[in-house]
Amino acid sequence: MVSLKCWVLLMLVGGVSLLAMWTAAADQPRNAEARRVDTGDAVLVIHGGEYDLPESVGPEDAGPYKQVLRKALEEGYAELRKEKGTSLDAVEAAIRVMEDSPLFNAGRGSVFNHDGHNEMDASIMDGEHKDKFAGAVAGVTIIKNPISAARAVMEHSPHLLLTGRGAENFVMRLKIDQPDLARKLEVRDPRYFWTQSRWDELKKAWAEEDQQSPQGKKEGRAPTPRRHLGTVGAVAVKNGKLAAGTSTGGMTNKWAGRVGDSPIIGAGTYADNRACAVSCTGWGEYFIEYAVAHEIVARVKYRKGCTVEQAADELINDELMKAGKDGAPIEGGAIVLNPKGHFAVTFNAEAKQMNRGYITRDGKASVAVFEDRLPDPK
Amino acid sequence: MVSLKCWVLLMLVGGVSLLAMWTAAADQPRNAEARRVDTGDAVLVIHGGEYDLPESVGPEDAGPYKQVLRKALEEGYAELRKEKGTSLDAVEAAIRVMEDSPLFNAGRGSVFNHDGHNEMDASIMDGEHKDKFAGAVAGVTIIKNPISAARAVMEHSPHLLLTGRGAENFVMRLKIDQPDLARKLEVRDPRYFWTQSRWDELKKAWAEEDQQSPQGKKEGRAPTPRRHLGTVGAVAVKNGKLAAGTSTGGMTNKWAGRVGDSPIIGAGTYADNRACAVSCTGWGEYFIEYAVAHEIVARVKYRKGCTVEQAADELINDELMKAGKDGAPIEGGAIVLNPKGHFAVTFNAEAKQMNRGYITRDGKASVAVFEDRLPDPK
Repeated sequence: MVSLKCWVLLMLVGGVSLLAMWTAAADQPRNAEARRVDTGDAVLVIHGGEYDLPESVGPEDAGPYKQVLRKALEEGYAELRKEKGTSLDAVEAAIRVMEDSPLFNAGRGSVFNHDGHNEMDASIMDGEHKDKFAGAVAGVTIIKNPISAARAVMEHSPHLLLTGRGAENFVMRLKIDQPDLARKLEVRDPRYFWTQSRWDELKKAWAEEDQQSPQGKKEGRAPTPRRHLGTVGAVAVKNGKLAAGTSTGGMTNKWAGRVGDSPIIGAGTYADNRACAVSCTGWGEYFIEYAVAHEIVARVKYRKGCTVEQAADELINDELMKAGKDGAPIEGGAIVLNPKGHFAVTFNAEAKQMNRGYITRDGKASVAVFEDRLPDPK
Repeated sequence: MVSLKCWVLLMLVGGVSLLAMWTAAADQPRNAEARRVDTGDAVLVIHGGEYDLPESVGPEDAGPYKQVLRKALEEGYAELRKEKGTSLDAVEAAIRVMEDSPLFNAGRGSVFNHDGHNEMDASIMDGEHKDKFAGAVAGVTIIKNPISAARAVMEHSPHLLLTGRGAENFVMRLKIDQPDLARKLEVRDPRYFWTQSRWDELKKAWAEEDQQSPQGKKEGRAPTPRRHLGTVGAVAVKNGKLAAGTSTGGMTNKWAGRVGDSPIIGAGTYADNRACAVSCTGWGEYFIEYAVAHEIVARVKYRKGCTVEQAADELINDELMKAGKDGAPIEGGAIVLNPKGHFAVTFNAEAKQMNRGYITRDGKASVAVFEDRLPDPK
């Protein structure tokens, strides 16, 4: 018979040693970048997607991309500085800036689906899980800022996810019923979302398709989507309260009606004040299957000592790198931020690059695109 | 300096004692039903949703409901008995039976949205995470069996989730290109999905709406959806390989374009051979926010000694019961099955009742509806 005291002692020693070994084993991330830049005082982290560049664009063209990222950080930061400004406001403001730029695959710069239309998706989530705390739209074609429509669904409808015409009718109705909301819910003709570079990408995808299957062309075979990425997203924190959001035009040449991970709470976006906020970019089908955003939150929540960096690193650099057909790599990345201001910017070798940036509590902003690495803040 | 041997011993003792205490503490579920009926050799568990009865229906009308549930179990079981039959086949077959019945809120018996249309959602997932392993459709209006369309998206498209007209066009095209698939992908006029009892429910919801806000009626205010549930779902296992699926018509008087948790992988449906398979029913918006299906899988995966029953019980009976506005209860339930054949049928007090059934390895079927409890197999 062992005494209670002895049990407690044994358990303590065993527990601590287990924890120590666990930490030692898990603490070898290959994504050195996230580690190096994590300042521990970030308030807003953004991404402008991975592999977002037409082939004609080189490192010398980085300027305009960096400018938009910087503006997104500044506008988000301005919201955080307001007395009543929330992390949700910061996420929305930062994403709106990227949606308004034709350089990113969201809002104005959205890619075309197989039918030559833009179908946009977005979602947003509040890390404080009180009553209704998430909203999303999918397949919208005339909403200038899908992220604001997602927030409007969250705050002004009984629903969480509205799609297509239903989502657009909701926005139109809301603009009429509540004119004070109209400023953020601008509507545009589909033509506003038409850009030459995206159109060229679609035509190229069409041509490749026809070349691969001349018979298919004649018969109208099913299209082959091209994984053109460049989704945008943001995660923010204020007083320990997190928010996350994601917005995208999807994949070039995607089938009409296709929905990826960006508007799916749990796949492309998740936020929980008890763990972290996540916004993803990558091959949407796989990100839904692996419930990437929620899986990262679950690992941080349930695995002792698991940091945001470890959680993202394991999933994105290990598991997704062999998740495809016959173990093929699945490209993707995520930004993850915890309530204390620690963050990870993780993207795997298949994703190659990710447009990204962060801003600290005292307003120090850093951005990086293409093959750059985030500058060391020290 | 402590020797390695000693460390290992200490850790073992500590680990075992921790585990023992953990199990003792967590092992007090209030959902006594799941415990009592869990035979440990279930191969297929189904639900026909909660609170699925028009007010005119009483316990004496249970017969037809039980008949459909029994048929669903039998058809699913027949798939499992085939040499090449898989758990995925069983899930699809069982759900098709419930979709074909006007008694359940899926397929033929789907409820109407605010505009007087049926918009149906479904998803299916294979627990063996190899290449493409999930599929879903949302907002379809002419597909007789949305669960089979979801499976077709998984197996015959490059995408995972297709919505509305895009999903319907995909099904039509597939029927032409691959005539051998046409049998399972039947198309019907919207009229096929029109049932008097669902129409009466919609008219009642309209009337309540008008009564609550006569001014709103005149101005065409936003509709108030009624949480009429009755989603159907199934989870199955064969040789340790799991599958899950869910199908629904959503909520009566829902807004056009509204998507709930049923077609969302991670919310209404999830399967992972390393943990369990889950199909949910309940207030979809909250089920998406809490990523209920994936959260149950994550708890089983990451929390030592957490059974399927404990995972479902904590989330559905504890957390969802205070997740609404000002701590209001959110109704819902889930069926959960692990690779060894242990299962839980969990629904909270707010859900009141759930149509449900299971069948064991040797073909013993049990069903229950309304206020019944599943009969004890012993």
